[in-house]
Amino acid sequence: MSRTNCYDVTTWPTGDAADDIGEVINSIIADVKERQKLTEMGGRPGAVISIPPGDYRLRTQVTIDISFLRIEGSGHGFTSSSIRYNVPEDEWRDLHELWPGGSRILVDLPPDPGNDEAAGAAFYVARTGNPRISSVEFSNFCIDGLHFVADGSHPDPENTYANGKTGIYVADANDSFRVNEMGFVYLEHGITIYNADALSIHDNFIAECGTCIELRGWGQASKITDNLIGAGFKGYSIYAENHGGLLVTANNVFPRGASSVHFAGVSRSSITNNRLHSFYPGMVVLGAGSSENLVASNHLLRDAEPWTPFLGIDNGLDDEHGLIRIDGSNNSVIGNHLSVILDSTTVTPLGATPVAIRLTAGRRNHLANNHVVAMDVSSEASDSCFAAQVDALLATDARDDMAVVTVLVDPRSDSNRIIDSGTADEVVADMAVNAFAPTPSITV
Amino acid sequence: MSRTNCYDVTTWPTGDAADDIGEVINSIIADVKERQKLTEMGGRPGAVISIPPGDYRLRTQVTIDISFLRIEGSGHGFTSSSIRYNVPEDEWRDLHELWPGGSRILVDLPPDPGNDEAAGAAFYVARTGNPRISSVEFSNFCIDGLHFVADGSHPDPENTYANGKTGIYVADANDSFRVNEMGFVYLEHGITIYNADALSIHDNFIAECGTCIELRGWGQASKITDNLIGAGFKGYSIYAENHGGLLVTANNVFPRGASSVHFAGVSRSSITNNRLHSFYPGMVVLGAGSSENLVASNHLLRDAEPWTPFLGIDNGLDDEHGLIRIDGSNNSVIGNHLSVILDSTTVTPLGATPVAIRLTAGRRNHLANNHVVAMDVSSEASDSCFAAQVDALLATDARDDMAVVTVLVDPRSDSNRIIDSGTADEVVADMAVNAFAPTPSITV
Amino acid sequence: MSRTNCYDVTTWPTGDAADDIGEVINSIIADVKERQKLTEMGGRPGAVISIPPGDYRLRTQVTIDISFLRIEGSGHGFTSSSIRYNVPEDEWRDLHELWPGGSRILVDLPPDPGNDEAAGAAFYVARTGNPRISSVEFSNFCIDGLHFVADGSHPDPENTYANGKTGIYVADANDSFRVNEMGFVYLEHGITIYNADALSIHDNFIAECGTCIELRGWGQASKITDNLIGAGFKGYSIYAENHGGLLVTANNVFPRGASSVHFAGVSRSSITNNRLHSFYPGMVVLGAGSSENLVASNHLLRDAEPWTPFLGIDNGLDDEHGLIRIDGSNNSVIGNHLSVILDSTTVTPLGATPVAIRLTAGRRNHLANNHVVAMDVSSEASDSCFAAQVDALLATDARDDMAVVTVLVDPRSDSNRIIDSGTADEVVADMAVNAFAPTPSITV
Repeated sequence: MSRTNCYDVTTWPTGDAADDIGEVINSIIADVKERQKLTEMGGRPGAVISIPPGDYRLRTQVTIDISFLRIEGSGHGFTSSSIRYNVPEDEWRDLHELWPGGSRILVDLPPDPGNDEAAGAAFYVARTGNPRISSVEFSNFCIDGLHFVADGSHPDPENTYANGKTGIYVADANDSFRVNEMGFVYLEHGITIYNADALSIHDNFIAECGTCIELRGWGQASKITDNLIGAGFKGYSIYAENHGGLLVTANNVFPRGASSVHFAGVSRSSITNNRLHSFYPGMVVLGAGSSENLVASNHLLRDAEPWTPFLGIDNGLDDEHGLIRIDGSNNSVIGNHLSVILDSTTVTPLGATPVAIRLTAGRRNHLANNHVVAMDVSSEASDSCFAAQVDALLATDARDDMAVVTVLVDPRSDSNRIIDSGTADEVVADMAVNAFAPTPSITV
Repeated sequence: MSRTNCYDVTTWPTGDAADDIGEVINSIIADVKERQKLTEMGGRPGAVISIPPGDYRLRTQVTIDISFLRIEGSGHGFTSSSIRYNVPEDEWRDLHELWPGGSRILVDLPPDPGNDEAAGAAFYVARTGNPRISSVEFSNFCIDGLHFVADGSHPDPENTYANGKTGIYVADANDSFRVNEMGFVYLEHGITIYNADALSIHDNFIAECGTCIELRGWGQASKITDNLIGAGFKGYSIYAENHGGLLVTANNVFPRGASSVHFAGVSRSSITNNRLHSFYPGMVVLGAGSSENLVASNHLLRDAEPWTPFLGIDNGLDDEHGLIRIDGSNNSVIGNHLSVILDSTTVTPLGATPVAIRLTAGRRNHLANNHVVAMDVSSEASDSCFAAQVDALLATDARDDMAVVTVLVDPRSDSNRIIDSGTADEVVADMAVNAFAPTPSITV
Repeated sequence: MSRTNCYDVTTWPTGDAADDIGEVINSIIADVKERQKLTEMGGRPGAVISIPPGDYRLRTQVTIDISFLRIEGSGHGFTSSSIRYNVPEDEWRDLHELWPGGSRILVDLPPDPGNDEAAGAAFYVARTGNPRISSVEFSNFCIDGLHFVADGSHPDPENTYANGKTGIYVADANDSFRVNEMGFVYLEHGITIYNADALSIHDNFIAECGTCIELRGWGQASKITDNLIGAGFKGYSIYAENHGGLLVTANNVFPRGASSVHFAGVSRSSITNNRLHSFYPGMVVLGAGSSENLVASNHLLRDAEPWTPFLGIDNGLDDEHGLIRIDGSNNSVIGNHLSVILDSTTVTPLGATPVAIRLTAGRRNHLANNHVVAMDVSSEASDSCFAAQVDALLATDARDDMAVVTVLVDPRSDSNRIIDSGTADEVVADMAVNAFAPTPSITV
């Protein structure tokens, strides 16, 4: 017996992993299938494919149609390409390194912004029939889309977050997949998975991608946990549709991201215990009738874009949109902290009062013990410097309280309960059709 | 110096891992002990044993009595055996694969349902004396019990969840153990650990086992985090007895499971931030005087069994039992969402009102801001199809609200506080001996 | 193409890893830099350095100044050195093993308590210029400081938690670092990291260190998640200063530790969903103007030192100090459970009432639904036995309730809201300048 189910892309005889790792991995998968055909009615245990640290160009899409395949590298390799592309090119010679690293796949499929996400995927997983494809694992390597391209959304092509490239795309119903410890950078779509059951996306670094995680189609009983995530200005950091029993927890989601977490038609799921930071409203969306979800113990911070290359860019939503926005019923929003830190002169529409939580449609949502902090900051110099960003994050004193609507209930939503989530001045709702227990006021 | 502490089961000269991996691993452990005897009063650093992807029959129980042993595979290999066993056998030829995979251990010890869990364990860990055995690690392989056997509990032997097999059994006091990224399937007991200190069970896939995780004896300062778990109809998904300082968080626990989380005599522990789904009452049990625990920010869903092979099977508890049931004092139950989705004509006892949280004995429990949603659904066609299951999970609209007792306090429990966890109509307690602040009612 | 970026410390030709792993790793890093110089404007993907299980003395500090370096072992190797050092030496011959194990680094730099933490670091990471050093990963090995030394703080030198040794020290601004699955033991400082961005410290075992985790300088968007942590009596289990957007969650923090979590000037961060246990007050500190943080769904237990070698040792704070202590504004403290288990005759100052949450300065903090349990225990025999410790953790019955101040607001703090966090008898604040909604009283 030999290590016949262990492969290394750098020693496999077919292809040259440095030139086209896609060809190599496809050849390895073909070998696994050929060999495991022999044990017809017995086991087909799959294989592990190792990717040592190094740069590997991918010119051919990898197609996975076998269960129990693990692809593992030895380094998630993230570094900020966005910062580097916004450094003048004549300063590049002074940089220690220019590119992400680790076990790094350079996605060299033809860029085609807005293209079919599947066609532009580095890893394309598809298998119909029964059973659903199971236990495919991606671990600890880097998928780098290299460049964004012009699409009119930003004057600098490298700032568009568009290139039609996807890191991992799963087309068919699947079970017990794992994406752990990976790095994703400069892809229009990081991870797109249709019809997932018991999926785990855990402890990854997914940043500077148009959209980071998309759970599409439908699915159940999955988890997105303990990731560092930050999408571009057009996309979602985390998106799910028609899922039940999804657990989104312990993630640190940073800007930009048109939404931090966006649910569409998602039910009986949890967004708990995350740290969420955005430069725009619409951070947490329970949309399209999303119902019976729990949004609890999250920290939400919405402040202003600090970085020069993205000044004037946003997700198009005004400050009355709400940081948390709910179109659905029977949801629980309990024990969250929301900080709204804005220059009051830039609030949109002009003169409006920012809204923290907005219920647009549905009924019987339960809001309790949410603490909204709103502060009016004078406009500050934007700066790309990391230390200045941190300064902005820390500058909590010597600022004025700002008026805020902590909860706004639209007429199409009723029978909600709003408990200790704002004073009578801060909650705007038809009290004839909603129940309200105001936060006790300080009478000083 | 060579890699003398690294072993591979497929290249070790004694035994044949494919035929009996147990014999091979025991031989490796003997070698580690023999070699590390030489450094008498110095270090005994242990070893790592690798299991490449493949099928490995285990005919001999592995016995571990050394610290610092890591056994690691390259694939957790879960696929649903339960679905496959419930597919007509003449359709098996059309299946892509029949068995779990990855680095897969086929537990081929004699099946003996209800037998001593230790005798039927694939991995048996035991060492008395001092210090306690420490830092044994299990990582990223699959333990497959292969078959269940007839025991009278279900007409189909493969649906009984009984075979007397255990994945990992730890008999003696232990410290700093780790079980990470493993897969467990078709075992009567997944993980049974006695007397654990600072144990970590993290990021595993433990499903289709009679009972998944059992912490027995006593223990402290351990964590069960970020797992996908689902036990059979007779067993516990997570069970702990006489533990202090246990942290159960970020788990996605799916049906069946007689209980999702069952504590017996457990104190000062946390069940927070989990997603729990069950087909029966008795989902979270703080029993046998469990006190000073925190149950917070969890999402609980109890609905009806949808799958034909298990219709009519349950854990024997009626709907007045409570989804959360507490026999103990000074516990905190804060900020949970509970969905009770039932066909009112099937509620047991007939005509009863389902109970969400029930305090049976003890005192001074603190219940606050729990949101109970109860809906009456017409009986729906059961279906084994994954998409239909998801449909059921998502079907939250067009249903009628159902009467529910959000909190029931039995006479043997008193001095509890019930805050914003139901209206006066929904909370049943002797208000002379408990404190009550009702959720504000909607007066429409 | 070969596996040129994969190194093994036991096969590298320069140096002898068993005698000085520091020399070996430095030589490997020099090789990576030499080879990756060739691809000047291209990629510098870094490397992985493997440390098989074994004992490796470190006589030379490792200096890391390249990105994308992963150092990985095969075993975190923790065992309690503290228990062993407190066993009489003539009983050592009966012990199964004396030292930690796994992939174990024996830090043999000159001990110098109170010395510059950087000089005594086993791994010293430093690089100025741009970009910030990125994606250095430490995984699954053990860093053992071997001995503590006399410093006057404890009669037994091995109980001082002082030796001037640090496990990992990062001196310069860094991005996307990872410390996963490591073991740290008997170091004065486990991990000290300056100026971190998007750092992840996940699933480690960091115990019996003076201080475990220190995030110094400033930083943002990092996470400390799912660790088992316990510092010595002088130090912090988790410390952060001038950080924004830090997520501290799912950690099980055990004694001793002068603080469990100490924030200084930290803003918009989360301490949620942790299990915290301490023998002293001052468990969670939001100090030096820490503002807009969320402390939610945590379980805090403060009880008395049970172990003979540390009786009479503490952090010097009296019981009026508060388990949670806040000098800052706009923080949220929601849904925590606090157990205060003391012998009332030992409360300090004599005759005082212990304080659970104390606001010393700042304004507009929001405290809601915190449940404080206070019990007066008769003094019990201390015992080093593990089973006895567990007994103490479990002994929740047959004890008397003890008077407690659940919330104390000092005059320098005002405009706070205190909701359902204590009765009128238990909350001490100037109600003219704070808002108060008492927990409903039980009138029995």
